[in-house]
Amino acid sequence: MGHLFYIFIPSDPHIRGSLTQHTTEKMSSKGVDEQCLGWAARDASGVLSPYKFSRRNLGNEDVHIKITHCGVCYADVIWTRNKHGDSKYPVVPGHEIAGIVTKVGPNVHRFNVGDHVGVGTYVNSCRDCEYCNEKQEVLCTKGSVFTFNGVDFDGTITKGGYSSYIVVHERYCFTIPKGYPLASAAPLLCAGVTVYSPMVRHKMNQPGKSLGVIGLGGLGHMAVKFGKAFGLSVTVFSTSLSKKEEALTLLGADKFVVSSNQEEMKALAKSLDFIIDTASGDHPFDPYMSLLKPYGVFVLVGFPSEIKFSPASLNIGSKTFAGSVTGGTKDTQEMIDFCAANDIHPRIEVIPIEYVNEALERLVNRDIKYRFVIDIENSLKEN
Amino acid sequence: MGHLFYIFIPSDPHIRGSLTQHTTEKMSSKGVDEQCLGWAARDASGVLSPYKFSRRNLGNEDVHIKITHCGVCYADVIWTRNKHGDSKYPVVPGHEIAGIVTKVGPNVHRFNVGDHVGVGTYVNSCRDCEYCNEKQEVLCTKGSVFTFNGVDFDGTITKGGYSSYIVVHERYCFTIPKGYPLASAAPLLCAGVTVYSPMVRHKMNQPGKSLGVIGLGGLGHMAVKFGKAFGLSVTVFSTSLSKKEEALTLLGADKFVVSSNQEEMKALAKSLDFIIDTASGDHPFDPYMSLLKPYGVFVLVGFPSEIKFSPASLNIGSKTFAGSVTGGTKDTQEMIDFCAANDIHPRIEVIPIEYVNEALERLVNRDIKYRFVIDIENSLKEN
Repeated sequence: MGHLFYIFIPSDPHIRGSLTQHTTEKMSSKGVDEQCLGWAARDASGVLSPYKFSRRNLGNEDVHIKITHCGVCYADVIWTRNKHGDSKYPVVPGHEIAGIVTKVGPNVHRFNVGDHVGVGTYVNSCRDCEYCNEKQEVLCTKGSVFTFNGVDFDGTITKGGYSSYIVVHERYCFTIPKGYPLASAAPLLCAGVTVYSPMVRHKMNQPGKSLGVIGLGGLGHMAVKFGKAFGLSVTVFSTSLSKKEEALTLLGADKFVVSSNQEEMKALAKSLDFIIDTASGDHPFDPYMSLLKPYGVFVLVGFPSEIKFSPASLNIGSKTFAGSVTGGTKDTQEMIDFCAANDIHPRIEVIPIEYVNEALERLVNRDIKYRFVIDIENSLKEN
Repeated sequence: MGHLFYIFIPSDPHIRGSLTQHTTEKMSSKGVDEQCLGWAARDASGVLSPYKFSRRNLGNEDVHIKITHCGVCYADVIWTRNKHGDSKYPVVPGHEIAGIVTKVGPNVHRFNVGDHVGVGTYVNSCRDCEYCNEKQEVLCTKGSVFTFNGVDFDGTITKGGYSSYIVVHERYCFTIPKGYPLASAAPLLCAGVTVYSPMVRHKMNQPGKSLGVIGLGGLGHMAVKFGKAFGLSVTVFSTSLSKKEEALTLLGADKFVVSSNQEEMKALAKSLDFIIDTASGDHPFDPYMSLLKPYGVFVLVGFPSEIKFSPASLNIGSKTFAGSVTGGTKDTQEMIDFCAANDIHPRIEVIPIEYVNEALERLVNRDIKYRFVIDIENSLKEN
């Protein structure tokens, strides 16, 4: 397993250039015979290794995307290691996909060959229910089809972005503005929209208000960036001091609090309008809810093992505790455009595919600032 | 202890007349020497008996109210029996007060002698914070002063509506339209606003949407009435069938489900826009949250011992779980006016003060449809 990796610095024009320069070669249509290269886990060990498979023929409304980058999300750990007991091996993970359109079906209207595009956490939905009609496909009444380890409506098991290309109905593709680096775009497709969507839905985009962000990983650091872009005063809560300097200087947070410091926590009582909780592990909620002002909103985007708090924490002050998962296609495109317009880039560590097993292990150990992105284009090649 | 009680029927003109006809005699100002008659609990037994005490002199902005009726709320049980360990005996309970203005201070602008008025769960607040300025005094940053067993800003322990009169700053008094029976008005001041305020705040007043109401006591039956007045389809959830007929015919609910009937519960999966939970006892939340549509809102107004549910119940479908306590003066007046305009009356059982100990015991045993109201005017007299 290789150890080569490098930090992506969006402001460096050399690297930026190299990451956005691609050969958009015309591919001949080979139908189902075309081989897709990928990396897959074969069993609950979760160890990934090269794997060849087929994808469906290009449909009339489909877009064929040469994948250049794929972000590494904790979901990749969950299903490669069968943490939910429903993994359908071989599992090709990855749902933070960025790439270049190489072919389009005859009825595709929104995309052309050469466009930069993204694919997120789902690749299909009924397209007919009230939620699909509102472009909230993630809430589809028939269930949205996850980008990997999902069962598509035709019965095929979906395979994700740790692969050379993907075929997706254009509805589930997003435009990435040409000036925005594809490597940076990848984490927006899950981490970005997962925090952006509930922040906007729960009106956390009101300048001058105060936001608390719990956890400073892939999701949390994006919440800080969105919070600052929305004009909020942002306080970061973390379990250790190690990220303080970066939170304040690189991410622009206004305050940094170690959550075990009861004095600092107490000083913030009833001071926050919103809290977004991106922590993946279990932790008590009551201490944070006491930091909310009356009518304060606490949004949970992580999946702890249970939610438990005192009724007084909720009722006194008439507070709200809300949940969320990713976002619909409307929110997703809006979020990508917002990032491009406001020069918001996730902080990423770009890695070759050979490093992915080690990267997943580091993700489990929270040894990452802040998102791994696999350089599919330059490292995923036929041996 | 007497057993006399009678059902109040608002549509009966005879009773209606007798309950709204009062002698609004001019009282001479006797200052602190004026004796207030009340019933108080002396210790954690919670047994109430007659008790005389003084109230403050009429201040410049105070209203002196002859109490005609007082609703019986579960809060009366809590503090007469020291359930929260903070009872300040003797406790004169009662925070659903209706009566007639008998004197006004020189700077009182909103009320005149003879006006019908109500007093709810709080009688003071700082009047200077952002919440007071928005007439959300129940959220006052310095804490609103509860109507009984509270400590007022001058240090006096507040005494509630199981008494002959009360002196209250006009800000915390509400106009009860003359055509609305005072006996019916009393329960609006706590039970009514406790459900109305979060229902409006969480947009449960959107005609055509669907509402679930958990529990059918003093609060729950008002939630049903408000729900129907808002144009909602209302489903009542109860632990037993005993209230089914009344819920459907008298209260106008559309459906009645016994919550232990898993088949009926399952049939309602993902069908409700809102749920308001008025149940006082502990019960699981997950089965109800599964009945919410995506973006559904669950509002808790009761105080169970803890709140506990699965993250999936909240996150899948991006649902919201919100708490609430009573409401500000703006919401309260709006709710009273809404009830008067829409002919909404709580269903009450009017009792004499001598029956109150038995009434509290029946309340504990949930043997009540739906709210006791003490006929203070006709039963609380000096022996």
